[in-house]
Amino acid sequence: MTNAAQSTAPQPAESSSGASAPSGFKPGKGAGATVGVALLGMGTVGSEVLRLINERSEEFASRIGGRLEVRGVAVGDLSKPRPGVDRELLTDDALSLVKREDIDLVIEVIGGIDFPRQIVTTALRGGKSVVTANKALIAAHADELSEAADESGVDLFFEAAVAAAIPVVGPLRRSLAGDKVNAVMGIVNGTTNFILDAMYHRGASYAEMLAEATELGYAEADPTADVDGYDAASKAAILASLAFHTRVSGDDVHTEGIRDISVDDIDAAKAAGSTIKLLAICERLVDESTGTESVSARVYPALIPTTHPLASVSESYNAVFVEAESAGRLMFYGNGAGGGPTASAVLGDVVAVARNIVHGGRGPGESTYASLPIADFGDIQTRYHVDMEVVDRVGVLAEVANAFSAHNVSLKTVRQQGIEDGARLVVITHRAKESELKATVESLKTLDEVRSVRSVIRMEG
Amino acid sequence: MTNAAQSTAPQPAESSSGASAPSGFKPGKGAGATVGVALLGMGTVGSEVLRLINERSEEFASRIGGRLEVRGVAVGDLSKPRPGVDRELLTDDALSLVKREDIDLVIEVIGGIDFPRQIVTTALRGGKSVVTANKALIAAHADELSEAADESGVDLFFEAAVAAAIPVVGPLRRSLAGDKVNAVMGIVNGTTNFILDAMYHRGASYAEMLAEATELGYAEADPTADVDGYDAASKAAILASLAFHTRVSGDDVHTEGIRDISVDDIDAAKAAGSTIKLLAICERLVDESTGTESVSARVYPALIPTTHPLASVSESYNAVFVEAESAGRLMFYGNGAGGGPTASAVLGDVVAVARNIVHGGRGPGESTYASLPIADFGDIQTRYHVDMEVVDRVGVLAEVANAFSAHNVSLKTVRQQGIEDGARLVVITHRAKESELKATVESLKTLDEVRSVRSVIRMEG
Repeated sequence: MTNAAQSTAPQPAESSSGASAPSGFKPGKGAGATVGVALLGMGTVGSEVLRLINERSEEFASRIGGRLEVRGVAVGDLSKPRPGVDRELLTDDALSLVKREDIDLVIEVIGGIDFPRQIVTTALRGGKSVVTANKALIAAHADELSEAADESGVDLFFEAAVAAAIPVVGPLRRSLAGDKVNAVMGIVNGTTNFILDAMYHRGASYAEMLAEATELGYAEADPTADVDGYDAASKAAILASLAFHTRVSGDDVHTEGIRDISVDDIDAAKAAGSTIKLLAICERLVDESTGTESVSARVYPALIPTTHPLASVSESYNAVFVEAESAGRLMFYGNGAGGGPTASAVLGDVVAVARNIVHGGRGPGESTYASLPIADFGDIQTRYHVDMEVVDRVGVLAEVANAFSAHNVSLKTVRQQGIEDGARLVVITHRAKESELKATVESLKTLDEVRSVRSVIRMEG
Repeated sequence: MTNAAQSTAPQPAESSSGASAPSGFKPGKGAGATVGVALLGMGTVGSEVLRLINERSEEFASRIGGRLEVRGVAVGDLSKPRPGVDRELLTDDALSLVKREDIDLVIEVIGGIDFPRQIVTTALRGGKSVVTANKALIAAHADELSEAADESGVDLFFEAAVAAAIPVVGPLRRSLAGDKVNAVMGIVNGTTNFILDAMYHRGASYAEMLAEATELGYAEADPTADVDGYDAASKAAILASLAFHTRVSGDDVHTEGIRDISVDDIDAAKAAGSTIKLLAICERLVDESTGTESVSARVYPALIPTTHPLASVSESYNAVFVEAESAGRLMFYGNGAGGGPTASAVLGDVVAVARNIVHGGRGPGESTYASLPIADFGDIQTRYHVDMEVVDRVGVLAEVANAFSAHNVSLKTVRQQGIEDGARLVVITHRAKESELKATVESLKTLDEVRSVRSVIRMEG
């Protein structure tokens, strides 16, 4: 984006004002034109997208002012039966498909990073607009892809990458474009929410609920991306980039998953009037002494009071909280995953992009002008729930309390419970720095009195 | 929007394909250009909008790729002191202001219908884009205004007209443009929600809570538009038009306000595990025998179970539920009124429209191609809570029950409570048609046994 002070005289629409400026808007193909579509991927989402493009063809034609025509469908395995797809459309050569002259819009619903990166980059450089649901791709390569989109003057839309049908990308890019967003916090992974919600309501173990989630289709055969928080981390990176007009990649997101959440942790949460949720937290921070702003994006399980709206997000639903200076607090809630909800988000983008292809123009591109620094995770402040097993003798509490105060961590509540041959000590802190809490925990582990630190879970909301 | 079947060959971008088709793509003023802004109205929202345009000028310049320059501010009373506004900008001649050559974008935050209608139409016909917060204007004159916007190829945006900062117009126009929306239900008026919420939680009367709302600034000196449901009805008309791609005006919305809600009604709701909310309901209906679709938009107070998410919308907050075929259920929640939240929505639109002015193109215009018929209110089905005072003697219940069954209204629960010299009878029906319930109530009123029908409130959710 050009700084207007440098160039106040109107420029002809086609001129380029710099390497990263949009190359000027493209006039459209014209009212009534046909938009050639390439669909990459025929999994759950891809097949639903294709089915609905056909089922809703008249509505879409009316809404776009032009007609969508799927001209190629790229799949991995050509031998697999594909009922409902014209075999003429199928190809296993996605690269050639996106290079075709008669393709205007590419829908990428393959997933993964490296192969989609190559295909999407080729498509954008070739002047095709792209609609994707691929959070991992955007979180990792938004910079390169946005640059390609800007240079060709085409759209790169990805509403479906975050919280499926719940509009979050659109509102952050558009409705909140006149505001100052200070925080985004949410439950953005359906698999982990299903597991934690079931653990809370049914007292079951993590392993049991992971097995059930897998049976029900809420978890993949390899659930790592979900349970270790990487899926949520990709979404946090995207949300933070949009909210703070700053490039935040998946690597910038401190990520902790839910593998270590135990039945005891859930019980401890209940005792504290809370539940445990895997949260994606994006925050704008201001250094009180210097006034410097920085941003943070992180994913970890946290205790949330049961009275908090996020606490009531059940099963595989998602919810996103946004806090903005003028708007105040907003919340969006709905289905964060699944063929129908994801297809809904993809198709909303397809209609918008197709409108631009027909009538001319582009939607908002990437906006990273603020370029705020990423805060060091050690400086992040929050509250902690620390659960320890200690020996039961005189002076233990004092030793433990000293370990906290030596690192500047102030205690809010302490609960001690006798157990066989020892005691369980549960401590809730006031707000403290990550680095100081981390040092405290390391210190506690060295104490003879402390048999084990069973869990350290943050508290939010 | 042209039906693509009529015109499949690409048309040159500038050609017009019919009276109601967009006039073709307008190239932008060019990256870095200045966008001349006229602000109409300096009330709570207008003054906040002006303040923020100045405070956020650098951010907006980066986000737009061009600079906003407020070139005129129209007010009613020039003599009134306006701290923070350059007096050179003030005028009381809004009409001349919007006709100026150097004005590209008009922000209308005056309110009212007739005068804004004239000004906004003039602006649109003169090729200026318009951003408005005026729900009554859009609900009444969307047809004429959209036509003017289409003919000039400019934007008419109104996110701020419905639920202030909560993005609803944007999601219905964009994210859900690929889906089929079947229902929209919400609490969209902060004044009435504040009053009803306070009546529920504090057992106070309507009159008491209206007085408090007025003191606190949640109600105007003349609260008619809010308490009689007209404000909600305008919003319902806008939501229904967007959801069903059909023109629904304020006049098409069956509207009932909250003036008659009594402390007894609130108590009866509590006894039924419910609360009372003023709801805006937009619904797509399908005639089971013919398959014909029609649409309904209505506003009335209704009992909602306390377990329903809308029941927990407190004070002056708003929430909107959307049900779409692929997306499933979505909910949006936040501040539905106030200077900051409304300004946030106005400015989101200003940035989007300014981007189009600078870079070329338009956002989605009005889409009413579906042209579904408005269902007759008498055919709408819902459940009813009917509260009567009856004489306490043999056969009364039978008479009352007969009145219901004679009109095909089936009873779900009946509760009788002795009161001095009579009895109170509270009946909850199964789903029934409005016309049949209305006939039942008229019939009940003719019965000697029925002293009075104290209230008839619908039940939703």
